[in-house]
Amino acid sequence: MTTQQKTWSQRFESALHPAIARFNASIGFDIELIEYDLTGSVAHAKMLAKTGIISAAEGEQLVNGLEQIRREYRQGLFVPGVDAEDVHFAVEKRLTDIVGDAGKKLHTARSRNDQAGTDTRLYLRDRIAQIRSQLREFQGVLLDLADRHVETLIPGYTHLQRAQPISLAHYLLAYFEMTDRDWERLGDICKRVNVSPLGCGALAGTTFPIDRQYTAELLHFDNVYANSLDGVSDRDFAIEFLAAASLIMVHLSRLSEEMILWSAHEFGFITLKDSCATGSSIMPQKKNPDVPELVRGKAGRVFGNLQALLVVVKGLPLAYNKDLQEDKEALFDTVRTVQGCLEAMTILLREGIEFNGDRLAAAVTEDFSNATDVADYLAAKGVPFREAYNLVGKVVKTCLSGGKLLKDLTLEEWKDLHPAFETDIYSAIAPQQVVAARNSYGGTGFEQVRKSLIAARDRIA
Amino acid sequence: MTTQQKTWSQRFESALHPAIARFNASIGFDIELIEYDLTGSVAHAKMLAKTGIISAAEGEQLVNGLEQIRREYRQGLFVPGVDAEDVHFAVEKRLTDIVGDAGKKLHTARSRNDQAGTDTRLYLRDRIAQIRSQLREFQGVLLDLADRHVETLIPGYTHLQRAQPISLAHYLLAYFEMTDRDWERLGDICKRVNVSPLGCGALAGTTFPIDRQYTAELLHFDNVYANSLDGVSDRDFAIEFLAAASLIMVHLSRLSEEMILWSAHEFGFITLKDSCATGSSIMPQKKNPDVPELVRGKAGRVFGNLQALLVVVKGLPLAYNKDLQEDKEALFDTVRTVQGCLEAMTILLREGIEFNGDRLAAAVTEDFSNATDVADYLAAKGVPFREAYNLVGKVVKTCLSGGKLLKDLTLEEWKDLHPAFETDIYSAIAPQQVVAARNSYGGTGFEQVRKSLIAARDRIA
Amino acid sequence: MTTQQKTWSQRFESALHPAIARFNASIGFDIELIEYDLTGSVAHAKMLAKTGIISAAEGEQLVNGLEQIRREYRQGLFVPGVDAEDVHFAVEKRLTDIVGDAGKKLHTARSRNDQAGTDTRLYLRDRIAQIRSQLREFQGVLLDLADRHVETLIPGYTHLQRAQPISLAHYLLAYFEMTDRDWERLGDICKRVNVSPLGCGALAGTTFPIDRQYTAELLHFDNVYANSLDGVSDRDFAIEFLAAASLIMVHLSRLSEEMILWSAHEFGFITLKDSCATGSSIMPQKKNPDVPELVRGKAGRVFGNLQALLVVVKGLPLAYNKDLQEDKEALFDTVRTVQGCLEAMTILLREGIEFNGDRLAAAVTEDFSNATDVADYLAAKGVPFREAYNLVGKVVKTCLSGGKLLKDLTLEEWKDLHPAFETDIYSAIAPQQVVAARNSYGGTGFEQVRKSLIAARDRIA
Amino acid sequence: MTTQQKTWSQRFESALHPAIARFNASIGFDIELIEYDLTGSVAHAKMLAKTGIISAAEGEQLVNGLEQIRREYRQGLFVPGVDAEDVHFAVEKRLTDIVGDAGKKLHTARSRNDQAGTDTRLYLRDRIAQIRSQLREFQGVLLDLADRHVETLIPGYTHLQRAQPISLAHYLLAYFEMTDRDWERLGDICKRVNVSPLGCGALAGTTFPIDRQYTAELLHFDNVYANSLDGVSDRDFAIEFLAAASLIMVHLSRLSEEMILWSAHEFGFITLKDSCATGSSIMPQKKNPDVPELVRGKAGRVFGNLQALLVVVKGLPLAYNKDLQEDKEALFDTVRTVQGCLEAMTILLREGIEFNGDRLAAAVTEDFSNATDVADYLAAKGVPFREAYNLVGKVVKTCLSGGKLLKDLTLEEWKDLHPAFETDIYSAIAPQQVVAARNSYGGTGFEQVRKSLIAARDRIA
Repeated sequence: MTTQQKTWSQRFESALHPAIARFNASIGFDIELIEYDLTGSVAHAKMLAKTGIISAAEGEQLVNGLEQIRREYRQGLFVPGVDAEDVHFAVEKRLTDIVGDAGKKLHTARSRNDQAGTDTRLYLRDRIAQIRSQLREFQGVLLDLADRHVETLIPGYTHLQRAQPISLAHYLLAYFEMTDRDWERLGDICKRVNVSPLGCGALAGTTFPIDRQYTAELLHFDNVYANSLDGVSDRDFAIEFLAAASLIMVHLSRLSEEMILWSAHEFGFITLKDSCATGSSIMPQKKNPDVPELVRGKAGRVFGNLQALLVVVKGLPLAYNKDLQEDKEALFDTVRTVQGCLEAMTILLREGIEFNGDRLAAAVTEDFSNATDVADYLAAKGVPFREAYNLVGKVVKTCLSGGKLLKDLTLEEWKDLHPAFETDIYSAIAPQQVVAARNSYGGTGFEQVRKSLIAARDRIA
Repeated sequence: MTTQQKTWSQRFESALHPAIARFNASIGFDIELIEYDLTGSVAHAKMLAKTGIISAAEGEQLVNGLEQIRREYRQGLFVPGVDAEDVHFAVEKRLTDIVGDAGKKLHTARSRNDQAGTDTRLYLRDRIAQIRSQLREFQGVLLDLADRHVETLIPGYTHLQRAQPISLAHYLLAYFEMTDRDWERLGDICKRVNVSPLGCGALAGTTFPIDRQYTAELLHFDNVYANSLDGVSDRDFAIEFLAAASLIMVHLSRLSEEMILWSAHEFGFITLKDSCATGSSIMPQKKNPDVPELVRGKAGRVFGNLQALLVVVKGLPLAYNKDLQEDKEALFDTVRTVQGCLEAMTILLREGIEFNGDRLAAAVTEDFSNATDVADYLAAKGVPFREAYNLVGKVVKTCLSGGKLLKDLTLEEWKDLHPAFETDIYSAIAPQQVVAARNSYGGTGFEQVRKSLIAARDRIA
Repeated sequence: MTTQQKTWSQRFESALHPAIARFNASIGFDIELIEYDLTGSVAHAKMLAKTGIISAAEGEQLVNGLEQIRREYRQGLFVPGVDAEDVHFAVEKRLTDIVGDAGKKLHTARSRNDQAGTDTRLYLRDRIAQIRSQLREFQGVLLDLADRHVETLIPGYTHLQRAQPISLAHYLLAYFEMTDRDWERLGDICKRVNVSPLGCGALAGTTFPIDRQYTAELLHFDNVYANSLDGVSDRDFAIEFLAAASLIMVHLSRLSEEMILWSAHEFGFITLKDSCATGSSIMPQKKNPDVPELVRGKAGRVFGNLQALLVVVKGLPLAYNKDLQEDKEALFDTVRTVQGCLEAMTILLREGIEFNGDRLAAAVTEDFSNATDVADYLAAKGVPFREAYNLVGKVVKTCLSGGKLLKDLTLEEWKDLHPAFETDIYSAIAPQQVVAARNSYGGTGFEQVRKSLIAARDRIA
Repeated sequence: MTTQQKTWSQRFESALHPAIARFNASIGFDIELIEYDLTGSVAHAKMLAKTGIISAAEGEQLVNGLEQIRREYRQGLFVPGVDAEDVHFAVEKRLTDIVGDAGKKLHTARSRNDQAGTDTRLYLRDRIAQIRSQLREFQGVLLDLADRHVETLIPGYTHLQRAQPISLAHYLLAYFEMTDRDWERLGDICKRVNVSPLGCGALAGTTFPIDRQYTAELLHFDNVYANSLDGVSDRDFAIEFLAAASLIMVHLSRLSEEMILWSAHEFGFITLKDSCATGSSIMPQKKNPDVPELVRGKAGRVFGNLQALLVVVKGLPLAYNKDLQEDKEALFDTVRTVQGCLEAMTILLREGIEFNGDRLAAAVTEDFSNATDVADYLAAKGVPFREAYNLVGKVVKTCLSGGKLLKDLTLEEWKDLHPAFETDIYSAIAPQQVVAARNSYGGTGFEQVRKSLIAARDRIA
């Protein structure tokens, strides 16, 4: 087949310029949709037969032909080139080669507009299901880690300044929550992804007595588009997915940042295992956290894809415009990126890092992150919180200039500061107690964390 | 109050540099949250009293003081300056002026981190409710227009080339569907917006025996954050909203594009009424579609806000970081923009445009947008669709070179092309019939459109 | 070579996880840099020999080995797999296979950080030169078209409303100006692209007595980075290019929009030739402007790449971080996109469209776009412009309700409106004269346009 | 003035809907341009008089009237409300109140399109000059700091892992280079900002014998737009600025990241002074790096503005469209943000941080960041670099498992590893020597750094 013989060429007198043919062709990337295209066409063929638009025999021929193409493709025997323009024409052409005239009936009551939309939604539905399942696996790894680290203390930060010590499990559960929202959000989106545009035609529906509910059922769509113009021009579902993917990347990038910080010499909270780290081409001592760095970087890529598709769709008049062909690469690249990042981060957390217990234990005893507890101690004894807070501020200042920590103050010194202090101040500011005491719902207290762990397991069960 | 006397100044020896104070201050914009801040503080105060953390009398003092500040604010008597740093400190300071020592107890078991998060969610929940109601109003206007235009024909386009004629009501219903998804999506998002972070403290919960469910109830939150680190660092809810807002703007920008095209001299499908158009400073004849142009332009602004917040949150380590202060202006500006655009477009459709019936009627008879119907005609008589399609392509080519339309061909000419043509080909390609015949589910056939209208009314009832 | 045997593996005890190896590998895309990598390495090898860091014989061996790899690559004999990690290691490994121990000396006084930066800059410098030359070719096509259409009138628009008629050549020259800025801007950027980071080492320079000026000369760099940390972490040059590429796409997207509008039935200003248009799979009459639609859509993709790289680099601590590996695909994709779009639009303008003279001639006589000229006519006779403007506004209103154009008013009617009108008002508002009269510098007057054409030819000569 | 009486209302029969008037009005933000509008109008008036389009007396009246408005504005006496639509109409109206009929002549041979474009360019030219001067001031602070810290060592990082120690001055000079590119880039952009659109009219030039070169001279423009369509629709200059501003924010965000890291307890390289840090509302010990955090966050905001304007302009047909009104707020907000961030970071570096000498001194002796020097040592003695590198990798592994650093190895141990080691290996790996030895051009060697400092001073002199 040369570029002269496009399927739509009868109204056209001269051939397409070869450079333009190359520029327009989408076969280079939409081949990724081929299995969905075949599945969609099978459903369409069955519907055409069921409704009598074609004969039962023709229907069978079409289905068999399409399944033959599927086998050929899987075996590497069907490899359409750039002349095919797109995967839809490539399949129709091969089908006609196989089954003859019946092949020319497949496109009855259908347009590439609703066909491509169907393929894309089937593809995305599958990928979303895979990503949700990857999220669950990732959450499982978080919970496994958390189970082992309920009583492991680690500094908690705000502004990257030590704030209050927390349970390491509590930290890990924060990411459980984020990814749980990701999982839930993808579920919500599916309501708008899993809707069939098949039968919307080019833009206005069709004159044939088709049965859209039947194809929707065959393809396991939950719903069908109620308006044909909307059905062929809607890309909300793709943008919604890109936005949800961006949030997944936000979460992974935050975790990555912490893995990078924690594996830095200065923090030293974790050690990267050799199986998940890389070296330098010149500095022999280096062990680099390439995985979280790449994940963090790839957040930008996904945000870029989201932006790109928003820009594409903005201001487009109804219904289909060729600009929309740009949805595919943005979508495919995002799916690949998110799946790759989830896989890599799951491996990293499961087998790529080791927590340095000694370092963590030391970390929570060497600073003023128990200062709030002193203020709370006083407030609990009736000193107005703001007053207690101000008083502790002064204590910290004094300690700093004296090179002391709060635990180093004598009871006398405490009492000089405020008569309400008793000997129990020492236990109140011990790291283990500081963490245990934050036992409000959702807090880092061990009891709370254990409850949260159980609840989390239930949610992903 | 000078910049020397910040609430948190006791650990600090010297005053904040005035330029830095200005740079850090958020009071210039977070004053928009003041009523939500007061409402949140009232709930917190009641909870402190209920749980015995403060006395009932203190609780009452606090509530009364806060309500007094609300009155003062509404009357323009409470106008915090840049020295106040932020709305939270401004309120606490004024409260302490009013109620004395009790005021210093308000911040017990709370941090600005969970407080600001609470305020922002209350604000956004309210605005989302308003936007959803504006969407419903807009949909009502669409349906009113559609009711009057079921049998008004208008060219349907793909690639901005005339494709197939459609019912104007069908076109309007496409926007009904888009905005219905917007409405539904905002509802889904609310599940993740309407969650209380109050009681998460700075990051780790609190040592006080607070009751988070109680404050959540008082503030009509559906749920509470299950993890305190997550509660203070999560901005998913804001980003989700910005993404949903971007989609609203996508839809409005597409409609705007069409209003601009249709009011152009070349299309002439609508006339802008003087109440919704503007002129030129130099060209006396001009009447410009400023409203849809501005709406189209403002899509970029909302996309920019979405992008901005994604960038802000990407790679931030837990928990709160000052970068997150940048969420507010992006959010406020987006809310204002979306509400303004919805209002303007509702007015435009309701009273700002007039459809030019004659022009529309003429438009659908003067082109080849009934060509598919000829192919369908043959396909229905058993000619394989692709063959029929190719044959019609040739006919169109012939007509074009002869300066004819399809309706101008004689029966003989039709029969020469293919013996299957009968005299009913003329009625099959008449515009009214072409539209009526696309009666597949979701298609533009009048019967379908009438059903869709009824279903649409039901959905927004 | 298995994943166990990374170049940097000696400090590492265990092998890289295969999924992580895949995730990290850049060979899938950085192979695009191989020729630049070889060229850079040749220069480095020559410098090592010149400065005596290696022997002259070793230098020669390296150069020969590298050139052999170049031949092997061009002949398809050197095809590194994913195990190679990246193009740099792939080349070093193959080199060592070919030349033995000398190959292990190539990386002396160099790091992948400065090496990859060198490759990328060489690549981009080449592509920028190609794009600038494509811009010049495109401008040539614009000028050829403009030469033929100085006196072809076309409506000029603001707000997509007809404003004042213009010379078609004047319109085309507007795009000449935009692309001239693009050309100039790319030139400015080159000052910051064509700077050598080679010799910056990993981040801090090197202990060897290298000669950076020498490698820079060999590689035709204009300058060398003055600070090694900056040299390995700077991606400004790539972002600058992406921003300049975004502006090229802005310009092409605007032109595309007009090609789409003008080929719409309603405008009918141009006809797409068959060689540059495509059809529909279902509507036999369709001829679609796919090229400009795709170009318009691809603007979003380039903006997305710009955004992606900004996000990647934001907030990265010095010096190199793995996130920066994400620069390559954004850059390559943008280069391909811009080059493809420029090629396609050049073909479209050169041979893909035909202006419909009759339609254009009719268009400029049928509206009120000469209204400003009436106001100017009066203002030139001393009536204050704002008064003249207001008076003409009233005239237009009267004409509209009477179904008349300005040229249809009798002299009496003109004089009734204002006594200053004389019989020369008719010639003053004739389209040809209306255009000719705007002869201010940069205006659409034919004389001006001819001068502009000559000046434009000079600029690209 | 009510909304009924718009300047352009004569062709209009009914009043503008009040909500639409509000929606369209730009006076709320374009008032920022008023002084530039007055200056531009003064030049226009002088030109009208000079060319005889108006009389000399009228010209003088206009200039005096405009200067009176300037005075009134500065004294707070001229405060246009939303009824004014925009700053241009507000000024014209007030002018006519002051000078009578002559005021109605000001708009002769001009349109709001070229007028607003003139104002915006004048504004931006001024702001760019201010920003360039702020960049120079910032660079001065960097150099002052660097002067004091040539021999202060600090760990150099790649992948946030310690790589090789560097001179602190060398680090600071990296930011000097980045901001120097910013300064240079803004200079390049000015070539395209400082071009006069005045006289382009609405889109097509004017019929009056204006003198564009004269107004350009009066307004100190370097050039005039050569094509009127381009002149009124070009926003390249604004986008170029937003892209350059984004790069400034990239640089400041990177520096901010490091200030945040270095002030973290774990790094401890700097101490924030009280004048540039803030506290927590609840944790009395906290001292937070709010300034760099905010700066880092504000990078997102500027990227968002860039993206927004790209989206606005993409696909707009020529010439002016109302969408372009959205350029102003994006521009103003970016200018404010960049200026604020530069000011804050200048203060922070000048007086807000203190380097902790002891901590830095200790940091560079406690790790393996001298490992490359061992490999270089061997390579300099003829061991192929890759072999040397691999050998050192093994040494590091051995040291790590033995809890040793490289300096702890005995000469015997060294010689066991490779016979080429001599006693000078100890001095070769001492931090001071490790830094001094990287004396290649652009490297961190002290001699190089001193030269760089001198060169840097010269560049900003």
